[in-house]
Amino acid sequence: MIERIAILGTGLLGTSVGLALRAAGYRGAIAGWNRGAEGARVALDLGAIDSVAADALQAARASQLVVLAVPIYATLDFMEKLAGVLSTDHLVTDVGSTKAQISAAAARLFNTPERAAFLPGHPMAGKERGGAALADATLFRGSVWLFTDDFNAQRLPQSAELVKGWREWVEAMGAKTLDLDPARHDELVAWVSHLPQFVATALSALLQEKVGDAPELRDVGGRALREMTRLGASPYSMWRDIAFTNTEAVQSALLALEQRLAHLRENLRTPELREEFEQANKFRRE
Amino acid sequence: MIERIAILGTGLLGTSVGLALRAAGYRGAIAGWNRGAEGARVALDLGAIDSVAADALQAARASQLVVLAVPIYATLDFMEKLAGVLSTDHLVTDVGSTKAQISAAAARLFNTPERAAFLPGHPMAGKERGGAALADATLFRGSVWLFTDDFNAQRLPQSAELVKGWREWVEAMGAKTLDLDPARHDELVAWVSHLPQFVATALSALLQEKVGDAPELRDVGGRALREMTRLGASPYSMWRDIAFTNTEAVQSALLALEQRLAHLRENLRTPELREEFEQANKFRRE
Repeated sequence: MIERIAILGTGLLGTSVGLALRAAGYRGAIAGWNRGAEGARVALDLGAIDSVAADALQAARASQLVVLAVPIYATLDFMEKLAGVLSTDHLVTDVGSTKAQISAAAARLFNTPERAAFLPGHPMAGKERGGAALADATLFRGSVWLFTDDFNAQRLPQSAELVKGWREWVEAMGAKTLDLDPARHDELVAWVSHLPQFVATALSALLQEKVGDAPELRDVGGRALREMTRLGASPYSMWRDIAFTNTEAVQSALLALEQRLAHLRENLRTPELREEFEQANKFRRE
Repeated sequence: MIERIAILGTGLLGTSVGLALRAAGYRGAIAGWNRGAEGARVALDLGAIDSVAADALQAARASQLVVLAVPIYATLDFMEKLAGVLSTDHLVTDVGSTKAQISAAAARLFNTPERAAFLPGHPMAGKERGGAALADATLFRGSVWLFTDDFNAQRLPQSAELVKGWREWVEAMGAKTLDLDPARHDELVAWVSHLPQFVATALSALLQEKVGDAPELRDVGGRALREMTRLGASPYSMWRDIAFTNTEAVQSALLALEQRLAHLRENLRTPELREEFEQANKFRRE
């Protein structure tokens, strides 16, 4: 059914999608476009794409399915441009980490009977460092791939089959799909994804100040410290757009954690400490 | 040189010490004592100890080296009792996570030419769940084993050889040794070990409240969330004594992180966010 895919943005996620599609048995065409030529070349060498497109919009027009795998504001820019050049034969999907603005743009620019369809998506997979060279065909295995379709794209008669086809490929790549309302999505990921990232960033930055000049002291922390700061390696460029497009929800989550830490700090020697540990234990109960 | 070891407390650490000693080629006797009979039986079945002692003090007297592998307050209790029954032929060491109180007790009760020697130790290795059944011969491989000897035990003529022998076994178990002043130790581990634990506890407890009733939402977080909350499974019983014996240093570290999180929260849309990410990146630079 889907035989021509264009991946716009062959960084870690875009390139991993190409590799995972191939590993899952996809045999159609995959054109790749990247802002920097090097990323596209790496994706081509890895076999994630089979051609490098010089023009993103032309590649999109020539495909049935467009996968936007660029940062959120770049995704919003592409949506404006693509809406003008695509037709009802096309489905566009994305991998952006916040969905309220992208879903609003999709409702405004796509998803009417005369226009191309747009299916907002968000694979909950990644690495603390980006780039095509780190791409992995198994990146999505065992992960959750969220959709915030608002039940629009999949109801359009012209795109229902493409939506169904893409969902099947996502599952073939090893991910479990889950549908959420866009606002609920952004609130949820603020807690389970953005908060852990910002905590790791704050903890890593603080420890850099305290023990950063003494690597032998940093090593003392062992596995626990390495895990708690792994995401400290995440680049600003990946998180800036998330901070900008999900500000309020992230602020609420951060404030709640600050209060929780203060409570714990004030109760290191009271029975409240036991309650905090027991509550935490519940979260990790298998 | 060391041919008779008594391990008092065959939980995760004590049993792992026995297994690691055997894996490193130790062929002497290892007597084990545990407050609960089940833990000692598991350690015996695993081959971490070769006899179960009914009386901890008798086992200690019969050994050359006593490894205290019980919680901190239990360690302090044992130190009082052992000081009365051991002689200059004995070296006692421990694995407690805070060292100021234990080092002070060592100076008060041990380490004179007429008494047994005490070498305060702290292997920076563990798991988020305790118990002999989870013990692991490779637990200390690649980790750091701290000593806060204040250069006392190793200077006593009667224990210098035992101290040297134990340090060699620690290295044979795969750990790198590092000597610190006890106060500096407690401050350092507040940052690189206790702070990460309490953050994971607070984060896990908070998320339990927010999404704990919906396992499918918890799964959304993926690997990043699993890593950031793994330590949330740590039991209160392991951390109570640490909170009590390193309160001020842990409070300072928690307060500093709260301030850092507040700073980040107030700057999600300013250039300060870039600086926090860049500072964090430095900590994770290989």
